[in-house]
This record gives sequence, structure tokens and C-alpha cells, in this order.
Amino acid sequence: MTETLRGIAASDGVAVAPAYLLVEPDLSFEKKSVADVEAEVARFDKAVAESQAELESIRKVAAESLGEEEAQVFDAHLMFLSDPEFTGQISAKIKSDAVNSEAALDEVAQNFITIFQSMTDNAYMQERAADVRDVSKRIMAHLLGKELPNLASIDHEVVLVAEDLTPSDTAQLNKKYVKGFVTDLGGRTAHSAIMARSLEIPAVVGTEKITTSVENGQMLIADGLDGVAIVEPSEEQVAEYRKKGDDFAKQKAEWRKLKDEPSVTADGKHFTIAANIGTPDDLAGVLENGAEAVGLFRTEFLYMNSNDFPTEEDQFEAYKKVLEGMNGKQVIIRTMDIGGDKHLSYWDLPEEMNPFLGIRAVRLSLKNKEIFRTQLRALLRASAYGKLGIMFPMIGTLDELHQAKAVLAEEKDKLVKEGVKVGDDLQVGMMIEVPAAAVLADQFAKEVDFFSIGTNDLIQYTMAADRGNENVSYLYQPYNPSVLRLIKHTIDSAHEAGIWCGMCGEAAGDSIMFPILLSMGLDEYSMSATSILRIRNEMKKLSTEELASLADKATKESLTNEDNIELVKNLMADK
Amino acid sequence: MTETLRGIAASDGVAVAPAYLLVEPDLSFEKKSVADVEAEVARFDKAVAESQAELESIRKVAAESLGEEEAQVFDAHLMFLSDPEFTGQISAKIKSDAVNSEAALDEVAQNFITIFQSMTDNAYMQERAADVRDVSKRIMAHLLGKELPNLASIDHEVVLVAEDLTPSDTAQLNKKYVKGFVTDLGGRTAHSAIMARSLEIPAVVGTEKITTSVENGQMLIADGLDGVAIVEPSEEQVAEYRKKGDDFAKQKAEWRKLKDEPSVTADGKHFTIAANIGTPDDLAGVLENGAEAVGLFRTEFLYMNSNDFPTEEDQFEAYKKVLEGMNGKQVIIRTMDIGGDKHLSYWDLPEEMNPFLGIRAVRLSLKNKEIFRTQLRALLRASAYGKLGIMFPMIGTLDELHQAKAVLAEEKDKLVKEGVKVGDDLQVGMMIEVPAAAVLADQFAKEVDFFSIGTNDLIQYTMAADRGNENVSYLYQPYNPSVLRLIKHTIDSAHEAGIWCGMCGEAAGDSIMFPILLSMGLDEYSMSATSILRIRNEMKKLSTEELASLADKATKESLTNEDNIELVKNLMADK
Repeated sequence: MTETLRGIAASDGVAVAPAYLLVEPDLSFEKKSVADVEAEVARFDKAVAESQAELESIRKVAAESLGEEEAQVFDAHLMFLSDPEFTGQISAKIKSDAVNSEAALDEVAQNFITIFQSMTDNAYMQERAADVRDVSKRIMAHLLGKELPNLASIDHEVVLVAEDLTPSDTAQLNKKYVKGFVTDLGGRTAHSAIMARSLEIPAVVGTEKITTSVENGQMLIADGLDGVAIVEPSEEQVAEYRKKGDDFAKQKAEWRKLKDEPSVTADGKHFTIAANIGTPDDLAGVLENGAEAVGLFRTEFLYMNSNDFPTEEDQFEAYKKVLEGMNGKQVIIRTMDIGGDKHLSYWDLPEEMNPFLGIRAVRLSLKNKEIFRTQLRALLRASAYGKLGIMFPMIGTLDELHQAKAVLAEEKDKLVKEGVKVGDDLQVGMMIEVPAAAVLADQFAKEVDFFSIGTNDLIQYTMAADRGNENVSYLYQPYNPSVLRLIKHTIDSAHEAGIWCGMCGEAAGDSIMFPILLSMGLDEYSMSATSILRIRNEMKKLSTEELASLADKATKESLTNEDNIELVKNLMADK
Repeated sequence: MTETLRGIAASDGVAVAPAYLLVEPDLSFEKKSVADVEAEVARFDKAVAESQAELESIRKVAAESLGEEEAQVFDAHLMFLSDPEFTGQISAKIKSDAVNSEAALDEVAQNFITIFQSMTDNAYMQERAADVRDVSKRIMAHLLGKELPNLASIDHEVVLVAEDLTPSDTAQLNKKYVKGFVTDLGGRTAHSAIMARSLEIPAVVGTEKITTSVENGQMLIADGLDGVAIVEPSEEQVAEYRKKGDDFAKQKAEWRKLKDEPSVTADGKHFTIAANIGTPDDLAGVLENGAEAVGLFRTEFLYMNSNDFPTEEDQFEAYKKVLEGMNGKQVIIRTMDIGGDKHLSYWDLPEEMNPFLGIRAVRLSLKNKEIFRTQLRALLRASAYGKLGIMFPMIGTLDELHQAKAVLAEEKDKLVKEGVKVGDDLQVGMMIEVPAAAVLADQFAKEVDFFSIGTNDLIQYTMAADRGNENVSYLYQPYNPSVLRLIKHTIDSAHEAGIWCGMCGEAAGDSIMFPILLSMGLDEYSMSATSILRIRNEMKKLSTEELASLADKATKESLTNEDNIELVKNLMADK
């Protein structure tokens, strides 16, 4: 029966395909005594053999669709399956304790996991704990006759369905087959939503119940334009949504013509539209979408896709690649934003009650200066290869800014003395995302070359509402007049001090936010590369004159988030 | 050997007494097979008998020093000790498995705990899990020959030493014997520090290593005026600090003369100094210290000291008691601030990644309107018995305020229709603690009768730094110009709208903050009752004229928290 679910439109486009449920089956079991231990061992061996065959097949599909490197993770799993230390211990336990395979498997696996995890000075061995967990899960599924979902084994077009997608799930997504996804949880700024926009896969998140509303193989529509998911649609609906998808594709083709056009308003004023990137690999999309700059290069990937701190050389190569790739256009690189919800396997950070209010980003850099210095040296060396801006995240006090700048100056001095070339148009800026920094923006503006407003964090702190927490998602209000006042004060302060102000949060590419920001005179708009042409098209339709009073209305007359949505919708109604 | 530790001065006064370490001993054990099970059972029975004798003695001391009610918790422990279901199972296990008592005790206790905890619809039985844990710990200590510390058993003067004190520890503190305390962790706004000030016990927190620097019974000085702890002081030091304590006591006696004086500045301007309270029992201290009002009555105790939601009648009685006790002086009662770090055993709230940015206070009330309505009805009925102000915590948007006010209006209408008397000078106000509310204070001021600034939360959100997190404690900056700007904007907005503005965070009673707030024209200062006379004395020394430019200097010229400490210290140097 057809069922329509409403969620949040997280990534543009429409997908129509059978559902693929990425939902873990229940693998709980009862510990039982067995009389015939030989038969039980045979049962266990069969489950291992089945797991092996399955893994080999998954590995093959993964190698074809995702590449050899991505497929190698499965080699480690296969190795464990054929390791007599592991499977042998389980068979032995079945025999000695006369227990069922599930109980023996669970106990031996737990022992292995505990041992690996206790090797805190050996990151490689610690990661093997995850392998043991994955392999045991697979054997357990075969013992219980359950099926484990696996992204790498998808070999036909699907709409993916999950409670939520983790970063490692999204890393395994194969765009060729995964045409869209629908999740129970998440909001527009969740990791999975950002990833979907970057991959240009339609996505609907926050439906609350898609995982229980659809079964594997049932037809599913994901309308990422309006945030609607339809389970078992009628034939008419399938046709209608296929057309909607095609129309959107045509619109995108229209936008594509703006690729080499400048970003100007209807009255000829130029503003910079830039791209947010996560790795040097994202450069292709940046150029393809005609970005005028990179407004945010997140450097976390260097730390997260690694078994140890990245070396100065590794970092230098990555930064240089992006600077050279942008061919003289400005590249803003943010120093590491680890902590909060981003952790590293090889860095034992303190457990925190409220990690978003804890030691993260520049706070962590200032407490671990050697790690910070390595990154700054790499950045300074790379600055010779293009137009670099170094940006500090989560600055909250002038004291922190002074400290960060002092370390940078020291490293620069050292390099210059060593005869290393450093770019002469290097800019130094800071994120405005801690409310304290926005409130005091006039003082900060005297000490940097630029600001970049990080709306995701600024909103969550100003509203005191975790942006990942469903219970308070109603308080994540980008257009709340209080948030807009802080943004306006930041922009005004920048201009009074004669520096430029950008924005690199998700809001810069948001259709409601954009006209308001334009009316405030924001200089640079940095967003997912896939939003650039849509916003450039939007800019063409707007004139700064007609927007002149919008900023004041939005911050002084409007009382609520909804007032401002209404205000912009009315303004844009005839465009 | 004498050792001096520096910490944070958390509560005024000086204590000199032997140390009492409230530190859990290591109760880990090895599981062993035993050959002589009868001997092992005898060993276990002996540990039970010793535990019983010890508990009975503790119960007796507790009844004498803390009262019969506080002592009753130990009856539940004694009951378990003599319950054959519990101890019998352990003896049986020693025999059947031929294991040592420690292993048998641990396994049986874990089973009991798991069973009790699984009774999620029976709060009473769930709480029994804690009793089992406590009793098992005591038996284990006797088995291992270790001593468990126990607050209730203290029968001589001590300075308490602990990593940190929990609310339940502080509830058991007997002022007669506990002359002061020194902890490893915590800051001025930690629960234990607030409690120390309310009990008027000198306290030094955040020494980082007092628990490893002092042994039970060693002489210890706790100087809560300057934040110093001295282990094994010399005779001269003992004399010196005893004198310092006496001098402080004399100063307090001087302040005490101000009890019935009005709170006025040197140039005769009157401002209200009020008290923060947690329960009706705190009224005695409020009256004794000459408070002119209750500026914050936290209602959480009604929810936390209970096995179920407090009834309308229970709440009504508590509110009425305070209103009558204040004899016509204003009482501001805050609606429940549950969530964040405050949880209830009988209310299953969602686990949150960042509880301080989660569903707490009025957010929870608005999602659970029946619980909210019960509290509002109790408040409205109590309003007939004095001068009541109802205050909503954690308001972040006008929409939330409208909703809360609408529910209040509905309940008031219902009561009036039922013929129930409601006070005619009832005021309705809100906390300013979410940055969004401070930024938009001019809009909020049009819709309430008063503001009360909650500095603890306002600072932590503005600085994006958890006030309980040691790693970012350097960012908890009450005098940061950004925080002061938000406070000033709030006060100015209130005055423009013709309403009064108070402050009920810890900052109102802070010596550095107070002159700044006075210069901003804050109307009401609500603090721990024990700070009132000190601040009244302070106020006498200051004139509004000489403070005229302080607010502007602190918000426009100062760049950092430290700049403002300097500014006020210079101003106060000749007072």
C-alpha cells in the first residue's frame, strides 16, 4: 500500500528505485548447552564457510565498483576467518564447554576485542578490534540465519534506507547504484546530508520511520526537493516523480551555463561565490561548478583518514595540490577542527559530558602546540604556491587569537630564516562561530584579514541547541532575528575595519538566507560546490537596491524565524 | 612534610583540622578456586557480620548528627544484609562453584542489580539497585581488608578531602564536624562550591592533587579566602591561619550588623539584594542574612527528592510556605529546570550527546504540558499568599515565551472560574541565559514583567564552554567584554521597556562583577544568602556617580576578561 512520509529535503533531486535497507538485523541469541558437540562444531564450520564465500563475493563487487583500495578492508576480515587462533579457539570452546556456537563465538570474540583494545599504544592493533567485531557479526548472522546488509555488495539501482548514515557508510556509497537515500534521523546540516549534496544524490532525512515503513525491494521515491518519501507509489506517481526529476535535471543544465559567468546582482554588483571542500579530490567538482574561490578547506580528512598524525610533508602536498589546482584563486584553509563530534583513533582525548562545549578545534591546537606547529609549517610552505588564507576555527577570546597568531608568526620567522619561500599575499583570518566572537566582532576585526561566519556552530550556541539533537531541532533557527543580528554585527564590524567577511556554513547556499545576507553586504558566500550555480542564478535576479531595507526588517522588525521565512518568500514571490 | 597546594577559593573562611579522605579504596579482586569451601563460607559470614556491626554504628551516628530521616537509608542496607535470598545465594554459590567469596559476591550482586534495574516501571525497585551496590561494596571491603570512608560516621572535627563531592555527599555533610573541604576537581560554580557557600563551610576546590597529597588524619588547613590548602602545616602556620579564620569571623560579625539596614550606595541609591534558595528550609538563612527578596527559588528539589512527580498539593504547600515566610517580600519562583545535568529516576529522558544543548528546563515543560500545568496551578494558587513572580528558565525564542504564557493564562482562567483565589500582583518573567534571548532582549522585554539574568548558563553558551569541563575552564569568563555586552544590552532593554532586571547567577555576589553590574544599573542582585551582607557592605562603599563610566569602559575599551579584573581592582584599590 502506498505510504507518503514527510521528512527534511536534504539534497536536491528525485530518485525512483527499489529500497535497500541498511538496517542491522537482531543478532541476539540464547546461550544453550549442546549434547552433540561434534554436530555443533560442524554447524559452526558451515557458518564460517558461508561467511567466507559471502566476503569473497563482496570483495569482488567492491573492487569493481569502488576500486581495489576500498576493497582491501575485506582482506583483513578474510584473514581472521581463516586464522586458526580465532576459529580454532571457538571450536575448542564449543567442545570443552558443550555450549552452542553463538555463545562460544561471542565469548571468544569479546576476548579478542578486549585484548586488541587494550593495546593503547598500538593504533594498528586497536583497529583490528573493529575487524573482529565485523567478522563475528557476519558469522553470527549465518548461525542465526539472518542477512547482513552491505553497501559494497549493491549491484543494481536502489534508494538506500537507513536510520542514519555514518561517515564510513557514506564513504562506501557507490553513486552508480545508490540513486538516493531516505533516513529516519538527521537534519539538513547532518553529516549525511552534507555528503549527499556533495555527491549530488537526492536525499530525504528525518522521516522518523522510513526503516519500519518500507521493506527491501519495495519501490521507493525519494524527493529531495520537497522532502517527501513515497513507499510503493502508484504508476501515476512514478511517472509524475520521474518527470519532476527530469525537470530538475534540465534546470541544473540551465544553471550549468552560468559556470564561467561572474557572480553579479541584477544591478551589476559583484560578490564572491566560493566552495567548501573536504579533500583535494573535491577540486574537480569545484572547478566544474565555476567556484570563484575555495572559502573553506576542512583539513580534518588528513587526520581522520590516517593511523597517525599526518606529517608536515603529507599536509604540505595536500595544501599545495589545492592551491595549485585553484590556479591563483583564493583558498581559505581552516586549521584542524578535531574534537566535538570528530575523534581520532590514535589520539586519546578526554571523554566530555558536552563535547560541543569542550576542547575542540583551536582550543585543542593551542593545548597541543607541536601538532599545531606542524600544520602551520605545512600551510606556510604551501602558501608559496597560490593565494592562501589561513583560518582559525572556534576562536572565542582575543587571547586565543593572539596565541594562535603568535605561534604562526614564530613558525613563519623560522621558515624565512631557513630560506624557505612563504607566499607574500598570505591572509590570516578567523571563523566567527562562538557567540562571544560575534558579539565582540568589532574588536576582533582589528586583528585579522578576514572573517568567515560558521553558521552551523554559531546557530547551535546562540540558540543553545545541539544541531544533531532531534528533540531540540525546532530551535535550530538560521533565520532567528538574534542569529541575524549577530551576523549583521559581524559583517558591519568587518567593513568598518576595512576587512572582508565571508560565510562558510550551510546557510550561505540556502535560498531563504541568501537574499538576507546579500542585503547585509556579505562579501563571500562559500557553500557545497553543487549549490554554486543555483545561487549564482539567484544572485542575477536580485538587485542590492531592492534589498536595501531587508536586513533591517529581518533584524529589527521580525520577531521569529518564521517571520523571516515569510519576509523572504514574499520578496521572492514574483521572481 | 609541609606541602602547600593552590586551588580555587570556593567558599569563604578558614578551617584547621585533621584530614578525612572520602576516597574509595581499590576493591578489585581475583577470581580463585577454593579447596575448603566451608572455610570460605565462614570467611564470607564473618565479613557480613562485620558489615552489619559497622552499618549499625554508622546508623546510630547518623541518627544523632543528621536526624532520624537521613539515617533511614541505612535500614535498607541492613535489611539486605540479613536477607537470606541475598547472602544465602552467595554462600550457595561459594559451595557449588568452589570459588572465593569475592567472586561469588560479585556475581550474585550483579544479578540482583540487573534484575532491579530492569524493572523500569517500578522506580522503587530500581532504586534498590543502589542499595545492593552499596551493601556489596561494604562486604567486599571487609573481605579485602579495606576501609570504606563514610560521611555519616564522622564523629570529630575534620577537613574533608575528596576528588569531588556529589550532591548526595554534600547532603550528608554534618557542619558540626566537617569544618571545611578541599577537592581535586571543581570550580567556583560547581555544585559542591555552591553547597559549601550555602552551608558556610570554607572550601578550596580544583587543587588537582589533594587526594594524593594528604593522608587520613594528617593536619590540613583549608583557606577558602585565598584558595590555599596546606598539608602538615608548621605550628606557626596553624597559629597564623587560626588567626586569619578568627579575623574573618569578626568581619562577618561586622557585616551582620547590616542585617536590617537597607541596601543603598554611598550616594543613597537603593538596589534590591535578594537570595537564591533551593528548598523552603533555606528560608531561615535568607531571613537571618537580611535578604530583601527571594530572587530565585529553584523548584528542582521537589522533583529530585521524590520517587514520582510531586503532586499539585505538595508543590502548593512548598511555594506557599516560602511566600508566607517572606512576609510580603517578593519571591521569584522558577519553573522546573530538569534536564541538562539534572535527572530524575522516575522520568526516562532521552540520552543526549550534549545535554547542556538539549531538551531541558522550559523546553521539557513545553513538551510535557501536563507536568507543566500541575506546577503552574500550584504556583497560581500559592500566589494568593504573598508577592509572587513566576519565572521561565531557558527561554530562547519568542514562540516559546508565547507558549509558556498561554499555558499559564489558561490555567489561571480555569482557577478563576473554579473560584480559586489568585494573587493580583503576580508578575511573570523569564531568565535571560540563552544568548539568543540576550541578543533579542528588547523584543522580549515588551512581553514580560521582569528579566533575571542567569550568568552560569549565559556565560557557558556565549563562550561555548561547558562550565563543568576542566579542559575549557579557562573560557568560563564572567568578565569577558562579550558577556558584559549581552548583560548590558539586557539591562538597557529592560529599562527602555519599563521593566526591572535582576541577576540570579553566581556572578551577582561576585566582588569583581558587582561594581560593573551596579554601573549598568542592574535592579536586583540575587545570590547565596551568605553573600548578602558582604555585598550590602560593598554597596555602601560605592557611589553610582563614580561608577558612571565603568560600564562603558568594561564593554567598549576592555578587550579581555583580565582587562576587566584589572579595571575593577584599580577602582576598588582605595576602598
